[in-house]
Amino acid sequence: MIMRDKEEVGVEVQPILINGTWVAAKAVGSFSATNPSTGERGAVSFPVSTWSDCERALTHSAEAAKQLRNISPAMIAAFLERYAERIEERASELVDIAHQETGLPVSPRLREVELVRTVTQLRQGASAAREGTWQRAVIDTKAGIRSHFAPMGPVVVFGPNNFPFAFNAISGGDFVAAIAAGNPIIAKSHPLHPGTTQLMAQCALDALEASGLPPGTVQMLYHVENPTGLRLVADERVGATSFTGSRSGGLRLKEAAERAGRPIYLEMSSLNPVVILPGALAERGQQMAQELADSALAAAGQFCTSPNLVFVIGADAAKNFAADLKHIYASREPSVLLSSGGLKGLEDSVHALIAAGATVVTGGEAKSGAGCRFQNTLLQVSGEDFMAAGSSLQMEAFGNSTMLVTMNDVAQLCSAIESLEGNLTGCIYSSASGGDDELYVPVAEALCFKVGRLLNDKMPTGVALSPAMNHGGPYPSTGHPGFTAVGIPASLSRFAALHCYDNVRAGRLPAALRDEAPNPSMWRCVDGTYKQGAV
Amino acid sequence: MIMRDKEEVGVEVQPILINGTWVAAKAVGSFSATNPSTGERGAVSFPVSTWSDCERALTHSAEAAKQLRNISPAMIAAFLERYAERIEERASELVDIAHQETGLPVSPRLREVELVRTVTQLRQGASAAREGTWQRAVIDTKAGIRSHFAPMGPVVVFGPNNFPFAFNAISGGDFVAAIAAGNPIIAKSHPLHPGTTQLMAQCALDALEASGLPPGTVQMLYHVENPTGLRLVADERVGATSFTGSRSGGLRLKEAAERAGRPIYLEMSSLNPVVILPGALAERGQQMAQELADSALAAAGQFCTSPNLVFVIGADAAKNFAADLKHIYASREPSVLLSSGGLKGLEDSVHALIAAGATVVTGGEAKSGAGCRFQNTLLQVSGEDFMAAGSSLQMEAFGNSTMLVTMNDVAQLCSAIESLEGNLTGCIYSSASGGDDELYVPVAEALCFKVGRLLNDKMPTGVALSPAMNHGGPYPSTGHPGFTAVGIPASLSRFAALHCYDNVRAGRLPAALRDEAPNPSMWRCVDGTYKQGAV
Repeated sequence: MIMRDKEEVGVEVQPILINGTWVAAKAVGSFSATNPSTGERGAVSFPVSTWSDCERALTHSAEAAKQLRNISPAMIAAFLERYAERIEERASELVDIAHQETGLPVSPRLREVELVRTVTQLRQGASAAREGTWQRAVIDTKAGIRSHFAPMGPVVVFGPNNFPFAFNAISGGDFVAAIAAGNPIIAKSHPLHPGTTQLMAQCALDALEASGLPPGTVQMLYHVENPTGLRLVADERVGATSFTGSRSGGLRLKEAAERAGRPIYLEMSSLNPVVILPGALAERGQQMAQELADSALAAAGQFCTSPNLVFVIGADAAKNFAADLKHIYASREPSVLLSSGGLKGLEDSVHALIAAGATVVTGGEAKSGAGCRFQNTLLQVSGEDFMAAGSSLQMEAFGNSTMLVTMNDVAQLCSAIESLEGNLTGCIYSSASGGDDELYVPVAEALCFKVGRLLNDKMPTGVALSPAMNHGGPYPSTGHPGFTAVGIPASLSRFAALHCYDNVRAGRLPAALRDEAPNPSMWRCVDGTYKQGAV
Repeated sequence: MIMRDKEEVGVEVQPILINGTWVAAKAVGSFSATNPSTGERGAVSFPVSTWSDCERALTHSAEAAKQLRNISPAMIAAFLERYAERIEERASELVDIAHQETGLPVSPRLREVELVRTVTQLRQGASAAREGTWQRAVIDTKAGIRSHFAPMGPVVVFGPNNFPFAFNAISGGDFVAAIAAGNPIIAKSHPLHPGTTQLMAQCALDALEASGLPPGTVQMLYHVENPTGLRLVADERVGATSFTGSRSGGLRLKEAAERAGRPIYLEMSSLNPVVILPGALAERGQQMAQELADSALAAAGQFCTSPNLVFVIGADAAKNFAADLKHIYASREPSVLLSSGGLKGLEDSVHALIAAGATVVTGGEAKSGAGCRFQNTLLQVSGEDFMAAGSSLQMEAFGNSTMLVTMNDVAQLCSAIESLEGNLTGCIYSSASGGDDELYVPVAEALCFKVGRLLNDKMPTGVALSPAMNHGGPYPSTGHPGFTAVGIPASLSRFAALHCYDNVRAGRLPAALRDEAPNPSMWRCVDGTYKQGAV
């Protein structure tokens, strides 16, 4: 919960990170974190910044962007690697405070999973920067034309509430991608975990000081009011913005940035449909109920790829599956949600889904007692009702709620899929024996064009750090279906502009485009052939 | 000139191309072409389509998009190649009518240059489709994750006035890129050359019929009113839109498309600054005056990359250069402009630049006599006045007008460059002896981040069909600096979405992602290594 008092400007608040220094914010108010497990409000106050703080950050970020053009990728890589080490050195403190601020379990979630993912991303970003293949260098020796992707300038990163490390604006995937591509960043931290962000920023600053990079390379504001955020993303000094969060917030930022001609990358919402074909359901229904519950209830379902929507064919088959799920959902203790605001949002969404025609199999209400918890919730609806309800049954309920839709046949299923908005992921479970192979074809064809990642026999949570990953998808799951937020080096492309050199004298070319290779690992496309080494 | 009468709906107008058939338009009015050399209005009337025509086109385009998913790239390639042949077979007719409608010279411009460029683009698109490297396939065998770029769905192409073949909505670079990437297109032709477009569409239809592709793959409307165009680009069936034309038109379409979450690629305006450093000016001033005039006056300066703005350092040096240019500009017969509307626009822009502080060295007025011609115009302004005027001296005068800016020193020059909006190109001429090498560094650094393509010792017109080309640039020259409209295969990326397959069974993968290579030429990134052939 964010406590904010405009009158509170006099209150002693924590400083913000501007140009390599912790400085007093020009605050319009303050807030503190609340432990969602206990309801206890933190003692430390953090500032809600005014435009004046943004202006300072932008000035130094623009300076840093210029300086970074002449700094070697190896220095940027060394910074990212030192930052990863620093996070490991302070891992216990980070895990402790993140646990307090988010209610996420210390182990394995924060310590063994998310922190490890975070330092892995930093190190992958370092390798990508050092190697340079991400620049997609193309060399046409005959025409004398050479091109590659180069930094765009200051990147504003808005972090989400649900990953205090791995998607944190100052340590997560977007941060890594923007920095590895050679840009400075201005992090707008999520107000639910300011203490975690502060500690991360300390680690970043330590690494930055050791790196020799410009001090404006990494800056951080804890929070801004909406109009200030809208002005920030539209500022002409901004190269690009990335945002992970709610659809309503994302769409407001999108409009402001795009009106000013500034690129913005958004990850906004996704139902992540799962289709279980009849053969699979008959063959291993109980096992799949287990898998689905593990995926949908983990972290109280607060993942961007959490499966919100499950399609099965046939009312009879669905009956057993629903019963299995009901048993698991009802018997498992729900995890703590990230905030009372999140609890309220989940409650409202579930009630809206019920009002739109879904029936409650189990759960459906907030859980009494300490902490922000919602009953593990399973809703069910018929294919007819789902189709008739239109978008009102396609609302994302962000949390531990799943809707089971019982379709009559594969034709109805395909129609339902075609009616879906764009999603990050879509899964199809089919019989191991091949019995569903015929049904699979039309279902996959329909689903494939509605999602960024199509899975077989596997739940969508757990977004592997693979160069082949796509954590993106058609609108409105993201703002553009050609970009991914996870998967290095592809995620770096979002923060780069295509630069072309035509007849430019050899000694004046950037290192990545000279005849000699900038390093032995970089792949370049030379006269139609991909190769490492010299032209 | 477009003559349009809303009352004229009863007039007999040419049919539009919908789903493989020439059908009567539901027209809201009609227009005909005018020969800009003679002022003669064409006898044939073309329809201004209502929404009902767009609706038909969208329905069939959406069907075609589905069918195209299961059609081999080789069939698409064969269509593009057959289309190129058909254009060659009808070359004389095409050149004749384009000459009548645009006033562009038959030879070499239309016959030897633009028509050849057009069929080359079609054939390059065919090769790219067949080979598949454009899909940027990434295969992670250990994680079982594979991704590539796949078609987005119906693409709406708005063609510009200045290239009746090579950027025509139904035959130009955007058409080729969208089709080669596997999408159907809806061409919105430019109303200044409807007869040329009709003939191109006939060639396309002949090739389409021979190809076996869905009849909705290529459709064409001659013209729509603004509100209809805005509705078209925002339609949920549209995968993406591309537009080449004026900034005002582009920005209106941008807003409509982006509000609906539909990707749009725009090429809108560019001054294409040319910097001539002192050593180069001293060394070969006369030669450069010749080069500049050749580039800036060709086709009456109606190229997207025409150099509108030239910077030199030092008033004395500028004096000789201006005199040389004045002599050439005044003695060369101006080419015919594309339309009386274009003439009016150029006249207004030049007068606005003069009002904003530029002085006329030569020209500045429309030319009397037959045809739409404007005097070859050279304007001049001091560095101080240029800086003081801000954006009012940075207006694009689309046509045969050039502004020479005399800077005091390199610091002032760099400030001026930093004040520029985004451009497609920027050129730096420097001494062959190396005398400008020190000055070059800060100038190139400033210019490089304001343009999509940086040139040395070469004018920006003549956009080579190279895989390393970037015909794009920072806003507002385009809508996003990461995409190029020229350069195959990169230009295909605009019309593709990233598709990822996670744990998908081998037999269900698209051909491009299977272990066996879909063809021996396709490059794929397999476990970090770029290779051709099987995984």
